[in-house]
Amino acid sequence: MASFISPIRYENEKMYLLDQTLLPGQEVYLEIENKKDLWDAIYELKVRGAPAIGVAAAYGIYVCTRDIMAVNFEDFCGKFHEVKEYLASSRPTAVNLFWALNRMEEKLLSLAGDRDYGSWEGEQVHIKQMLKEEAEKIYQEDVKACYEMGRNGLSLLKPGMGILTHCNAGTIATAKYGTCLAPLYLGHEQGYDFKVFADETRPLLQGARLTAWELNKAGIDVTLICDNMASIVMKNGWINAVVVGCDRMAANGDGANKIGTSGVAILAKEYGIPFYMFVPTSTIDLNTPTGKDIHIEERKGEEVYKMWYEKPMAPEGIKTYNPAFDVTDARYITAVVTEKGVVYPPYDVNLPKVLK
Amino acid sequence: MASFISPIRYENEKMYLLDQTLLPGQEVYLEIENKKDLWDAIYELKVRGAPAIGVAAAYGIYVCTRDIMAVNFEDFCGKFHEVKEYLASSRPTAVNLFWALNRMEEKLLSLAGDRDYGSWEGEQVHIKQMLKEEAEKIYQEDVKACYEMGRNGLSLLKPGMGILTHCNAGTIATAKYGTCLAPLYLGHEQGYDFKVFADETRPLLQGARLTAWELNKAGIDVTLICDNMASIVMKNGWINAVVVGCDRMAANGDGANKIGTSGVAILAKEYGIPFYMFVPTSTIDLNTPTGKDIHIEERKGEEVYKMWYEKPMAPEGIKTYNPAFDVTDARYITAVVTEKGVVYPPYDVNLPKVLK
Repeated sequence: MASFISPIRYENEKMYLLDQTLLPGQEVYLEIENKKDLWDAIYELKVRGAPAIGVAAAYGIYVCTRDIMAVNFEDFCGKFHEVKEYLASSRPTAVNLFWALNRMEEKLLSLAGDRDYGSWEGEQVHIKQMLKEEAEKIYQEDVKACYEMGRNGLSLLKPGMGILTHCNAGTIATAKYGTCLAPLYLGHEQGYDFKVFADETRPLLQGARLTAWELNKAGIDVTLICDNMASIVMKNGWINAVVVGCDRMAANGDGANKIGTSGVAILAKEYGIPFYMFVPTSTIDLNTPTGKDIHIEERKGEEVYKMWYEKPMAPEGIKTYNPAFDVTDARYITAVVTEKGVVYPPYDVNLPKVLK
Repeated sequence: MASFISPIRYENEKMYLLDQTLLPGQEVYLEIENKKDLWDAIYELKVRGAPAIGVAAAYGIYVCTRDIMAVNFEDFCGKFHEVKEYLASSRPTAVNLFWALNRMEEKLLSLAGDRDYGSWEGEQVHIKQMLKEEAEKIYQEDVKACYEMGRNGLSLLKPGMGILTHCNAGTIATAKYGTCLAPLYLGHEQGYDFKVFADETRPLLQGARLTAWELNKAGIDVTLICDNMASIVMKNGWINAVVVGCDRMAANGDGANKIGTSGVAILAKEYGIPFYMFVPTSTIDLNTPTGKDIHIEERKGEEVYKMWYEKPMAPEGIKTYNPAFDVTDARYITAVVTEKGVVYPPYDVNLPKVLK
């Protein structure tokens, strides 16, 4: 593979995060030297995207605990746990954050019996090495999952296709490649010559700021449109497939994703265009029966009427409704692309199979 | 009727235009004293909306010619024509602008025989009075057409309904009342208690800046949403009807309107919600067979990636597609509301009837 943007870099024993709040204007990697740096980066959305947050937390807790000088194993575990609790408080609803931190702690605890290093000093060096390797493993697992999702997604696409995407489920939201953008990168390397249309994705403009930026940077043909132009580009015959990410999929195949996804899916159905949702198996929740059981986060109205704007763009104090996600009903989803394969309806039957 | 915002005021022999470029931050009426004031106001979109531009042009050409001191009728007509040509150059594609200016000139020319005023001076006073009355007539005709559209539209709505609208076809786009917002004003006066949702309407935000502003000012319950939230508010069961304006309707009922309208129409059909397009009969063009024959204006990309924003919100030089309008296919339009009545499909049969 050609060089790819990764939002997390670990090089020469230093950890860097791409500051996504400065995109697309500036491309700055922040060095993460201590727990406060990492807490701030997660809290302020400098690193975003569920998989990317998980990987950042894994490397991050290693970096933040490698200078611990404990008196014994229990002391090390206690100090590690303190850092973990602190980092976990940075974004209380981010499942991948807890998942990664827990996995790192479990790794640490599994080393309890590993004491044939002659001295506690030797053991402590070993423990830190093992934690670093676990972080590297989490990183590589995410790269592999995204790569497999890309391969599986690419099997659904043909060279020269017009592709519409919404929000950003790209390389900077994961360790590498992205979820729904992964097949575009893999196809691009094989000369597929896609024509991509990126919805800007109001209110926070992840499509304009991030998707358009990363695809453009990779040399992929990308055209930025406003969300309300999805219908006309489909009607113009420019779109052969829609690819989107997913924040949580219920057992029946209803999928929650960035606000606006459900509208794009309905338009795709009306225009006879396949709609593919890219869903890492970790995001499929069989304990959630349907989309109705998924709680939709509502965010502050300022994002709609104030953020980004130089002059007021709506009347002062106007009432707003600002849901962060919507649920796309399973019947609008042509196929679910996972790292383990492509899943077709009926989803209630076929999703459990892929999870086995 | 309670007091209503009109974007054009003629009071104590002075003409004022509401500067819509300053909304919603400031509500400023500009005095129009000469032809340059008016030309600038139209060119800079300080007055916008096809009916409003027509009415502004009618009053405007009167104001800009009332100080002419001609030596005879032909001299007056020549000077009038010069002003007309100048004003017509302000927005070369605005049909209502030419229509109103032509109608004022025709009125003037019709006065050629009207010469029993004893002197040219007396005749000149008479001519100017007639022109002023013609402008007032054009204004009142637009008020009446909007009022009738409002009554006809209201017959389709029930108290307490949730209403979604896109862009601004409101009171400030016409002499008064608006087209698709007219029934909301009339219903509000009768205590209908509508819950209105206004799409912000990217890229130029007419929904956020204008619709939310004027409905809020009138005391109508309005909630601002991003365009991509139309699907979720419909799915939530909050919308009972969609009302939109129209820039041009073809003989088969296909209607061009602000970009995004076609997507809203498709969503409405999918969710089983009636979709009403408000179309003054002057906007129905039987010489245009279908929507495919309507040319769609493409505007500059800066509107999408640069306008309104403090910091860059898309990569420098990114490719964009920025159509100003889209065509909603007749099959998605539940009914066409005109000032002469409500028209139902088949539109190719029923539109010609209402034009008789």
